[in-house]
Order: sequence, then C-alpha cells, then structure tokens
Amino acid sequence: MQRAHLSGLPDPPAGLAERLAGVRARTLELCEPLATEDYVVQSMPDASPVKWHLAHTTWFFETFVLGPHRPGFRPYRREWARLFNSYYVAAGPRHPRPERGLLTRPTVAEVREYRGWVDAELAELLRGPAAGRPEVAALLELGLQHEQQHQELLLTDLLHAFSRNPLGPAYRPGAPPPSVAAPLGWTAHAGGIARVGHEGPGFAFDNEGPAHRVFLEPFELASRHVSAGEFAAFVADGGYRREELWLSDGFAAAQAGGWVAPLYWTGRDGAWRHFTLHGELALDPAAPVAHLSSYEADAYARWAGARLPTEAEWEAAAHQAPVEGQFVEGGWLTPLGDGRGSPFGGAWCWTASPYVAYPGFRPAAGAVGEYNGKFMVNQLVLRGGSCLSPRAHLRATYRNFFPPQARWQMTGLRLAR
Amino acid sequence: MQRAHLSGLPDPPAGLAERLAGVRARTLELCEPLATEDYVVQSMPDASPVKWHLAHTTWFFETFVLGPHRPGFRPYRREWARLFNSYYVAAGPRHPRPERGLLTRPTVAEVREYRGWVDAELAELLRGPAAGRPEVAALLELGLQHEQQHQELLLTDLLHAFSRNPLGPAYRPGAPPPSVAAPLGWTAHAGGIARVGHEGPGFAFDNEGPAHRVFLEPFELASRHVSAGEFAAFVADGGYRREELWLSDGFAAAQAGGWVAPLYWTGRDGAWRHFTLHGELALDPAAPVAHLSSYEADAYARWAGARLPTEAEWEAAAHQAPVEGQFVEGGWLTPLGDGRGSPFGGAWCWTASPYVAYPGFRPAAGAVGEYNGKFMVNQLVLRGGSCLSPRAHLRATYRNFFPPQARWQMTGLRLAR
Amino acid sequence: MQRAHLSGLPDPPAGLAERLAGVRARTLELCEPLATEDYVVQSMPDASPVKWHLAHTTWFFETFVLGPHRPGFRPYRREWARLFNSYYVAAGPRHPRPERGLLTRPTVAEVREYRGWVDAELAELLRGPAAGRPEVAALLELGLQHEQQHQELLLTDLLHAFSRNPLGPAYRPGAPPPSVAAPLGWTAHAGGIARVGHEGPGFAFDNEGPAHRVFLEPFELASRHVSAGEFAAFVADGGYRREELWLSDGFAAAQAGGWVAPLYWTGRDGAWRHFTLHGELALDPAAPVAHLSSYEADAYARWAGARLPTEAEWEAAAHQAPVEGQFVEGGWLTPLGDGRGSPFGGAWCWTASPYVAYPGFRPAAGAVGEYNGKFMVNQLVLRGGSCLSPRAHLRATYRNFFPPQARWQMTGLRLAR
Amino acid sequence: MQRAHLSGLPDPPAGLAERLAGVRARTLELCEPLATEDYVVQSMPDASPVKWHLAHTTWFFETFVLGPHRPGFRPYRREWARLFNSYYVAAGPRHPRPERGLLTRPTVAEVREYRGWVDAELAELLRGPAAGRPEVAALLELGLQHEQQHQELLLTDLLHAFSRNPLGPAYRPGAPPPSVAAPLGWTAHAGGIARVGHEGPGFAFDNEGPAHRVFLEPFELASRHVSAGEFAAFVADGGYRREELWLSDGFAAAQAGGWVAPLYWTGRDGAWRHFTLHGELALDPAAPVAHLSSYEADAYARWAGARLPTEAEWEAAAHQAPVEGQFVEGGWLTPLGDGRGSPFGGAWCWTASPYVAYPGFRPAAGAVGEYNGKFMVNQLVLRGGSCLSPRAHLRATYRNFFPPQARWQMTGLRLAR
Repeated sequence: MQRAHLSGLPDPPAGLAERLAGVRARTLELCEPLATEDYVVQSMPDASPVKWHLAHTTWFFETFVLGPHRPGFRPYRREWARLFNSYYVAAGPRHPRPERGLLTRPTVAEVREYRGWVDAELAELLRGPAAGRPEVAALLELGLQHEQQHQELLLTDLLHAFSRNPLGPAYRPGAPPPSVAAPLGWTAHAGGIARVGHEGPGFAFDNEGPAHRVFLEPFELASRHVSAGEFAAFVADGGYRREELWLSDGFAAAQAGGWVAPLYWTGRDGAWRHFTLHGELALDPAAPVAHLSSYEADAYARWAGARLPTEAEWEAAAHQAPVEGQFVEGGWLTPLGDGRGSPFGGAWCWTASPYVAYPGFRPAAGAVGEYNGKFMVNQLVLRGGSCLSPRAHLRATYRNFFPPQARWQMTGLRLAR
Repeated sequence: MQRAHLSGLPDPPAGLAERLAGVRARTLELCEPLATEDYVVQSMPDASPVKWHLAHTTWFFETFVLGPHRPGFRPYRREWARLFNSYYVAAGPRHPRPERGLLTRPTVAEVREYRGWVDAELAELLRGPAAGRPEVAALLELGLQHEQQHQELLLTDLLHAFSRNPLGPAYRPGAPPPSVAAPLGWTAHAGGIARVGHEGPGFAFDNEGPAHRVFLEPFELASRHVSAGEFAAFVADGGYRREELWLSDGFAAAQAGGWVAPLYWTGRDGAWRHFTLHGELALDPAAPVAHLSSYEADAYARWAGARLPTEAEWEAAAHQAPVEGQFVEGGWLTPLGDGRGSPFGGAWCWTASPYVAYPGFRPAAGAVGEYNGKFMVNQLVLRGGSCLSPRAHLRATYRNFFPPQARWQMTGLRLAR
Repeated sequence: MQRAHLSGLPDPPAGLAERLAGVRARTLELCEPLATEDYVVQSMPDASPVKWHLAHTTWFFETFVLGPHRPGFRPYRREWARLFNSYYVAAGPRHPRPERGLLTRPTVAEVREYRGWVDAELAELLRGPAAGRPEVAALLELGLQHEQQHQELLLTDLLHAFSRNPLGPAYRPGAPPPSVAAPLGWTAHAGGIARVGHEGPGFAFDNEGPAHRVFLEPFELASRHVSAGEFAAFVADGGYRREELWLSDGFAAAQAGGWVAPLYWTGRDGAWRHFTLHGELALDPAAPVAHLSSYEADAYARWAGARLPTEAEWEAAAHQAPVEGQFVEGGWLTPLGDGRGSPFGGAWCWTASPYVAYPGFRPAAGAVGEYNGKFMVNQLVLRGGSCLSPRAHLRATYRNFFPPQARWQMTGLRLAR
Repeated sequence: MQRAHLSGLPDPPAGLAERLAGVRARTLELCEPLATEDYVVQSMPDASPVKWHLAHTTWFFETFVLGPHRPGFRPYRREWARLFNSYYVAAGPRHPRPERGLLTRPTVAEVREYRGWVDAELAELLRGPAAGRPEVAALLELGLQHEQQHQELLLTDLLHAFSRNPLGPAYRPGAPPPSVAAPLGWTAHAGGIARVGHEGPGFAFDNEGPAHRVFLEPFELASRHVSAGEFAAFVADGGYRREELWLSDGFAAAQAGGWVAPLYWTGRDGAWRHFTLHGELALDPAAPVAHLSSYEADAYARWAGARLPTEAEWEAAAHQAPVEGQFVEGGWLTPLGDGRGSPFGGAWCWTASPYVAYPGFRPAAGAVGEYNGKFMVNQLVLRGGSCLSPRAHLRATYRNFFPPQARWQMTGLRLAR
C-alpha cells in the first residue's frame, strides 16, 4: 500500500468515521452469500481465503492505527499477528503465504468477533482526541482504502476457488442484464509534455506520486475496451498458436500453462461460455474481455496491428474523465458492454508500463512504507478499475499492478497506436 | 481395498447390520470436536479433508453396494461421484487428489445429509432379500472395514492439518495417563517353514491371501516397541547426521526434508516436546516412538545393532497373540507406554518387507479389485495397528502399507536380529 | 558393490593379473569409436560421462587397493578424489552426481595418463608380496568386477547421450545379423524348498549371499524373453492407455513421461524403428524387447495374462543353465532373436522382487561395504545379463537392480505364471 | 538482435570485409587456451557451450546473409540448422536450449570446418555485386555485431563452467595489474528534456531507436562504479540478511539461491577471494564490483542512501564521453580499478529501467526482427559495457538487457541520487 498524501486531507476529515463504518460493513455484506466452508479455502498461492481477507484488513487497523495511537492498547490475540500479517517485515514474522488455507482456526465466527472488537476500538479512538491528529486520519484513510482493495481481491480469489470446483457454484446466481455493442473508434492525443501522478486534494497511495512531467509522442487511444467477441476472433485465427505474435516469455507461459483462451472460458458445442461469480454463462461478445494475462493482451494488440498504451498515455487520456462506469456497486460482477466507453470500470486495462517508481518517489516512513515500493519489479501497471472495484476507490492516477502472467484478476485491455 | 474371503462369512452374517450402524455412527462421533472449518482443509497431497473422508466412505457404499444391489437405485447426486471417488478407475473419472481441499461445496451439512440418505438406503437393503446374498454381505463387510481404515486416516490427516497451524489446536485437550516403562527383552523363534496369510474364518482383505508357506531362518524379536526415550538417544548421538547409518535414499530424504527428529517433535529448553491430538505435550520417554518414516526406523535399527523384522517374522511371532493393546477406543490418541509389549496397538511397526503380492494373489473381480493390488510397488508393509486403529479392525495377518518416506501416520518400530 | 566371498578364491589366484589387464584394456577398446567430445557429456543425472567411468574405475583401484596395500603410496592427484568418488561416504566428499558433466578438466588425455599410472602401480603390486594376500586378491577381483559393471553402464549411458542428439550418431554403424524367431513355450517347475544365493567357488558380490532356503509354489517360466513384436502388439492394443493394466505408480510415471512405447522406439510411416548403438534401425520383431521400465514389463505381463517371475523363481530355473547367449563380446549391441532361449544375455529380465537383503546379509567391512547394502530400497532385481554385459561377469546368482521407472538400461522381461 | 539503421551506413561500407574477417578471427583467438573438452559443456540453461557459440554465429551468417543473397546457395549441412538456431521462430525449429550441452557431434573440428566454409562463402559474396547492396551490407554488419556479442557471452559462459569445476581451471593464468583507487564523487545534471536513442551515423541495433525526447528531473550520478571494497562493506553490514533493503522478489531470490555475497566470491581465512578467468584471486577492493544481480545492485544502492540511475539518465550523462576504459582487448578479464571513472568498460551498469520499447519502436522486417523485440518483458537494461566487451562494439546508446536475477554476466553498478 501507499503513503497517503497528508496535505490533501481535511483535519479532522469530515465523514471519515461514517466512511470507515460503511467500508467495514460492506466487506461483510460481500460475504453474505457464503457458506462457512467457502471462507477457508486457498485455491492457489497467489490467492487468499476469504477468512484471511477479513482478518488481515482488521489486523491492519489494529497494528497500524490502534497499536500506536490507542492509549492502553492491548492486542486482541497476540498470537494471531503472525497469521494475519501479509508481508510487513517491520511488523514481525509472517505465516507462509501459500499456507493461509491451512488455518482452520481461528474460526469464521472468531474472526467476526475480532472484527467487531477492532471496529469498536476504532470507534472509541474516533471519539477521542487522536481523531484530530492528521497522522491518525491518514492511517485510518489508508486502512479504509486497503480494505477496499481487499474487497476486490476477496471476490477474485473466491471466483478462482469456485472455478476449481467441478460443481461450479455460483456466488450470486442470476441472468445477465442486456448488453450494448459499440463500434471501435480512436481518439487522437497530441502528445508533448504531460503531467502524471497525484497532486491532491484527496487520498492517493504513495506510488501515485510525486506528480511529474513526462514527454509523450502523439498517440491514439481506442474508444472502448477490446470486447470478448473481438478476442474470440483472435482465438479463432490461431492467436494462441502463432508464436510470432507473442513475447518470448509470453509464449512460453502459454505453452506451459496450456492456454488456449482466456481463463474461465470453455468451448461447448461450438460456442464459448465462461465461468463467473454468477455461474457459468454464455459469453457476451459485446462485453469487455477479461481474465487475460498481459501476455495475451499484448499478443492480441500485435495481432490487431496496435499496441498497449503506456500508463502515462492512459492517464493523460483519462485525466478529465468522470469516474463513471461498471463498478461493484452495480451488482453485476462480470464485465458488461455498456456502450459508453468510459476509461473506468468493467475490466482493468493492462498497460505496456512496467511498475517502477516515479522520479523522486520515497516510500512512507515506517511499516506502511512496505505497502508499494518493494514490489516495483517484475510487474506491469494496470489502470481504470473493474466491475469488482468500489467506485469510490478509483481515480485517474490510480496504479494497480500484477505480474505479467497473472490471469485471475478482472483484467482486459484497451488498444493504442 | 481387498477381496473379502467369502468362505469365512456367515450367511447372512449375524449382526452385520448392527456392526455397520455402529461403525457409521463412530465416524461421526470422531468428528464431534470439530468446527466446520476443520472439515475442509487438505494440508498436503497425501492427506484428505475430513469432509472428504465422510463423503468418500459413503460413496463407497453407494457405488459398490447400493448401485448394483438396491432395486430401483438412483444416485443421490450423480455429479458428486467424481468428487468422492478416490482411485477406482473402473468407477469413472476422479477429481485430482491434491485438489480435494478446494471443494467448499457440497458443505458439511450436505455431506451429512448424504450420509443419512445412504445409511437409510442400506438399512432398507438389509431388510430386503439382498441381505441374504453372500456377495452383498461381503461388499457390506468390505465397506465397513474400509470405513474403519478411513477413521484412522481421518485422525492422522487432522493431526497433520492442526500441526501446520501456529496456534496448535488440540483435537481433544487433556493430560496424559500414567506411563509404564518396560525393559527391552528378546524372544527367540526357531525358524523353519511358517504359514503366512489369512485362512479364515472372518473377514480379510485380498492382499492377506492366499495363505502360503515361507521358510524362515531362526530370529529374535524385541519384547516391545522402540521407545521415544531410546529414539531420543539416537538423535542425541547424531543419528540424523551419520550418513553411514542410513539407506542412501533415506539420507537423501532426511537432508531434503530437513529432518532432525521424528515428525511433530520440537526441542524446547533442552527437552523434547511433541504435537499430538491432545495438543503439544512433553515427550514421554517410555511411550513407543511414532511418526517415523521407514528410513528413520531403519537407521535406528542399524544404530542399535539390530534390524527391522520381515513381515513374515512379525506374523509368525504375533500369530498366537490376542489382539490387545492401546486402540482408538481407549481414548488416548498418542502412544502410551503400557508395559505389556503386545504386538498390537500403540504404533504401527515398519517391517523390512516391500509390499508385494503373496504367491498366487489375484485381486477381486470388479472395481473393488483396485483396492490393493495396484499399489504393490514402492511401499513397505506395516504391521500391528496403532492407538488410532479400531480394535475390531486388526488381526495378525493384516498388512498395512505406506511409502518408505511417509511420516504422518502413527508409525514406529520393533527390532529384530 | 559387494563383499567378495573370500573362501572361494584361490590364493594367489591364478591369472588374476592377466584378467585384470584384459578388463582394463577392454574398457579402452570400448572407447575406440569415440570423439573426445563424446567422453564429456552427461545426458541425465542417472548417467555419467564416459570420461568419468574411465576415471572412477581407476579411482576405485587407487583408493581401495593401492591406498591400503601399496607401500609408500602417494595419490596421483589428491584433488581428483572428490571428482571420481561415486558414493563412498567413508572415502570422503563427492562431487554432486548431476554435475559430473560439468568437468571438462582433467581432460581425456589426462585421465588416460591416470589410468596408465594406476595400471603400472597395480602391476608393481602384483609383482610384490601383497599379491599373495587374500584380502588384496579379493579387492583386485572386486575392482575388476566393478570395472566390468561400468563397461555396460558406459555403453548404456553413451546410447542415451547419442539418442538426445538429433543427428543420431552411431557408435558402431552396421547392418543387423539375421534374426531367428522362436515360439513361446512354458517350462514347469515343481516348487518346494529351493536354495538361493551364491555358495562358491568363485567371485560373487556380497548381495548374492548368504545362500539360503526359500519356499516356492509350483510355477511355469516362459521359454524365452518377450519379443519386440509381441510388445508392439501390446502397444497396438492400447496398452499404454489402459490404466487397468498398470500399477498405480506405473501409470502415473507413463503419463508424466509421455510414454507411448519403449524408450528409443519411433513410429515412422506406420512401422516401428528404434535407436541403437548401431544407429536407428527397423525394429526386429523376433528380438527381445528392451529399454522397458519395470512398470511397462509388469503391464505387459498383466495384458498377457501372466506375471513377472520372482528372483527366486528365475534363479531356481536358471541354476543349471550354462552362461551362454548374446553378450558384449559378440559385437552386436542390441538384443537379437537367437532362437535359443537362454536365460542369460540379450536383455536383463525385470523380476517381481524388490531388492532387499537376503536373510543374514552383512555388508563387507570398510568403505566397500557401501557397494550394495545402502541401495536396498525402492529398486527391483533384474537377472540374467544383456547383450552389453561381459560374459565372464555373469552367473545365475547375480543380482542387478534399478529403480522401477528406469528405462535406459538394456532391460526386458520373461513371463511367469 | 536489432534492425541496423541503414541510413548511417556507407555504401559499400569501407573496410567491412576487413572488419568481418577480423571479428571472425578474433572469436577463434579467444578459444586458443581451450581443450576440446572445454567446448562442449553447458553449465546451466542460460549458458551455451563454446562450440555452440562458434556454430551459431556462423549459422547466423549462413542463414541471414548467404541464404538470401548468395547465388546458388546450398546449406552446408541442412540438418545442422535446428541445432544452431537460437530462437528465430521464422527460421525453423530449434533444439531445446537447455540441451545444447548434449550435442557431442558435430565435433569441434567439424564446426571449425563449417566456420571456414562460411567464411570463404562470405568472402566470395563480398567480391561479387551483392556487396554493394545496402541490405547485404546491413546484414553483414548485423552478423558482425552479433558475433561480438557472442564473444562476450562465450567468455562469461566459460567462466561459469570453469567455476563449477572444483579444480578451478584458469582460462588465462596471470597476476593482476596494479589497481588504482579513486574517491567517490558526484556529477550534477540539470534535467529537462533530453534526447535519447541512436540517430546515426554508424550501426545501432533496432532497440536503440527511434531517438526520442524524455523529460528528466535534475539528478546526480556517481563519478565511478561501486567498488568491490565498498560492496564488501555492505556484506559485512549484514546486507544480505536485512530484508528491508531489498525488493520483495529480490530477497526471495537471495534466500532461494543462498546468496551471501556476489557470485564467485569465496570467504577464506577472513578475506574475500573471487574466481575469475585468471583463476581464483584475492579480491581487489578498488576494482568495480561485478557478478551482481540487479537485486543486489538495488539493495546496495538503498543501503548507500542512493538509487540506480534510469537508462535515460545514464545515457544523458555518457552522451559526450569517449568510449574509453577497460575492454577485452586489454587482456585483463576481470574489472580493474583504473581511477578514470569512464562510463564505459569494466563492468556493465544495472539501471532502474525495465527493458521496453522506445516510443514508435518497430522491429526489423523478417527473421532478424526477432533479435530484440520479443524479449521486452521481465528484463532490465544495462549500460556501458565491460572488461569482456570488444571496444568497437560499444556506444552511449547501447542497450544490453538481462533478467533481474542474472549474475553470471560481468554486471555491476554506478549510483545515482
């Protein structure tokens, strides 16, 4: 996670307590369709159990907010810290990530009690003098944003786990809303010196700053995401077998993984279907394609005679756009063709930009400084958010990042040239 | 599993219905201390979730008894067969074994309903004419014995899962009963032609037959198991570092696995403790050592100037002994020093005998013929049962088998020379 | 390697010096067709470079004969010991086996000089008083037998390396001699108590003793090896896809390795060809099949309604047979159908017997005691020798052993029932 | 490899034939100290045998120059193409890279004949009319530059292979020249818009273009490389154990690889020694540190309160500097402290820049278009050349690239802040 830009925060922030309570309650709402068994499972090392997400986000508040700032603080259960610390070296030892699914205890009920205790403690804190201190507000805001990130991860991890069950359970059964197709257009940008990165007001992670200048050549950006129907044409054209379309590492990953289509796609009776949080559905050709690795996105772009945009190009183009689109609040949890072409929502867009520090970047002091900086290698930047993102979590400067081979996130693409 | 020797079975067998109901109920009793979360987890590919054990043993009855013999049979849920088939190729496709822990659905409650339905169907079957048919009785007996095997596996798999949780949950908290030390003696056997294998009456698995003659040289067998205290002396003497004491594959496994003591042992403040189903306890030096691979058992024997017995030697010596000792019914679920030296119970004894077919062995016809025969390579025979075995499941001809490197079973040794 | 049974050796042994010189020279003769580059390569961890075989057999004499028994002995190059020690822990540290192919130095020429030096030292020793000491004669004999073993390994390792080169180099180009087909018959054996193991006179490895009694049920043994044509019928019948024919570990190995036929077989234009030391040849249907793992041998036997013999059955049947057949001296280096059905030569026969100690087995004292005993797990016994074995190296009690999945040796089968 | 910028090439290029002959001869000169055995070995999948380098560079000329442009061309040996094609998909199938060390044939002598044949054919070509065609000159230049790259790889691969031999062979024994220490200073750069990339005249790879503008913040660059003595202080300060200094992937790589110092460093009697092409030497504290992964370079920079430069910063600073320094022609093949602080030579400098396409980058048409573009992911850019680089091969715009974990190249760092 990232350093909050404190300068942009009101002091004390109006409505922080309400937003905090809302986000915390929202996490539990997302769990309502689940059986106890569904909370426990870790379907691959990159994913985490739902129960772990519930506990980790709580541990984050306990460790970074209550610990330093709640007078007379005593840990809820000292021995739980190693279980729910993700990767904060400065916060002590950690249970191995691939073994999070082995932890049957504490139980779901015990983790819910833990959440309640921390929420009550935070409420107490917010009623006391600490609430007025900017660093406390900043850490509370960071914890809130952190929990929003984990809301999306919770859903993608759950989708992956359900996809590995031959019974194909549906998180939320239902029929898809009508879909709108839109022709593909191109928007020209003049290039030149552009300003990139967050300048406030409002919260941003530390990796969104410092704001700085970049020099852009003229470019064009597609008017909407690549659609599932367009991607199916790439598959039908032998896209997964034509090595010349791929990065060398990408083709190797595709061969090793036996990839013949995006993750969760299944060919049945000559038509593509895909597994979603609403169960297995017919593929909607007008909807943004998702569950691509960057390698597949890149090969598609080459096949289409285009390329992936850089993150600076994407940001320059999205800078003025309102944060509108398909988000988690809408309730439909797989991308929809909405005909609007907003840069936000639907599916994250892979960019051509490796995830590196902006010029002059410095991680935040203390353990929360580990949030972002130490992951700045072997990953690519994604932009724009998805149908699983909370709308309030997104902005034009937001930098998401995943390794190039990752497919289980809600990841698609938009072309540039 | 193995072909039942039908000749030895009464027709219809007195009390089969009662024994069946008792074994089925016993499995659920073993689950009483568990939280729902505890049923789901698979802590390594060799282990299975508790829920899977509950469902698989039920599937076994449904598939091999109800399917062929219950008039008008309809599967409970046709799509569950692939989830709960273990390795019976003839019974159709199987969910990959290492992914049993990914199945959050069906839930524990649904599996319990499944058990209830199958139990009711079996009861109906037993009230009908099929109950009098020897092949039905034989399959019911096989299913009952199969479920007893899984009762022990359920406990060893659970112990392994709990051991991977830093909180160290106890399945059944409690203080150990008093322990009795016994000096080590040796019993001489004259050798010559011995008869090995099951000849009835009563049930046996197919791998226990045919009964046949073997020629034994004179030998001596120790009067009791190797104790934990004796094994600690081997550890203190550098046993795990002295390559000359080990089989070549064994030393490689010990190095690769970082073994420095039996599984579940922890050195703390200069004393050994071990993790058990009763939680972490001080090591009892008089109790049989357990959780050894065959490699550790073999290295210990070499260090002690002795060797492991062959299975024929063990059987010749145990042939007349009553099946008495420490079994699961006693309620103490880690080996105890009881001073009696019975060949049965406490901890399984690794033998020097690879698991191979007896002369003239033929697997049972049909899918249940896959129970034993196809595993007759790369494993060693263990004899005698353990503190987790149901007493009624054991006999002198019983052949248990595991790969030489397996450590998570309740496995120890008795010396020969 | 194994303890020589000293009782059977003449003192001093007539002709030992001559036999020793002959075996040492024979090793170099086997290298005559090779380019320098061919000596260096290690094509898999189980194989060794030719140069290493030349040096290791020499190191064996230097370390176990010259070191203890040559007055004023000084090592040829002290720093080479770790390179050419295979697995003798008592003889000091060892270069990792999978990295033998990284040793470009010492060069082939330097290793040949080393061989010459050791040969000269041995000749000096044999002219002195030590030659009359039984333990020296026994160690010389052991070294000689050891070198004969490595002659066969040198050829099988070379075949493997050549097989990985798309150019398919031939060690000894040539056209196959005429082949003789023979019908399959069965020879009955009455069973009862049989005597197994070596009793002298003459050399044997320690694992061939002690001689002891076993009880055999009546059995029949096939009159010849399974032929390549018969095995091709198994392949054509879907043998590699029919899981019910296989041991569980065997089918897993076949799937993981992508096995569809014996090692070195290639289907081309509807006919089988195989790669041999004479280059790629049409498969000879009358010749013994070779390059099978024990899993393939076992699956074939099950398909054919038979089984593999135990080693005791094989030995009882071969006990009286002369050591005649196709050996390396004949010059044709892949099995031939010779119509004779000798138990010796052609292709090693996998048995059903795991490689374990005979009752009362004790390894030899000292480092040479590591020759055999520490490998007595996870391997199966093979009997009879092959077309790559020196004839003088074989006898009815000889126990060869390899892991069940090994395929690069000259390994076939003979059926029993 | 990269598209040559044809515009900058004379037509026909003066002295191309002479330079070509010189580079080809130079490759063979580099092999003079080698035994035949040294040509064969592949010590890890990333490395290649010397023989393969000799053949591959020759295949490059045969395939891309002679094939299309030599009238009446017939391949030297058609079946060798798959052996010596590295990764050019358009040029046909390829032998698996990790198996290059299995190819004992063709022999070294045969590969030398192959080189001679291709050299003669190239000379014929250069005497004919094709020599005047710009695309032929461009391909010859590309082949020449390609061979220079492989000269450095040949030496680094050889060093790795020799390092795995416990005898520690020296490629060129000798005593180190005197070393000059220099204090560390900083040079300030004003930032602003800088021009990056190659604009001619002269050869450049396609990845060095198009030239374009970037916006730089003000920065400072160190006056020389980080020295081995400075890096030893990092090691002594626990640098390899202090997780907070490392990127997350970097610390994981260090733990997995057991890294405690740069590759080839050995602590002996309290002092560091390192293995070089001149054999094992005492570490020279004034010499540039080398054989670092980017992770180690990055952790060092963080420890030193600085950072790695971006490639644009490095290029802006080096733009005017003459290509002077320690190159392969000097004959000392491990970095030396020369007190000059040239940006060129000694050790390649890891930059903070992932290897990506410059804006507007297009790979060359045809198979040589695979030279660079398909590797633009998961790698970082290195700049400046090393003591193993041919001086004529380097320039300020040159972009070398390796995965962040690579250590066997001659790779060090220069700090920025």
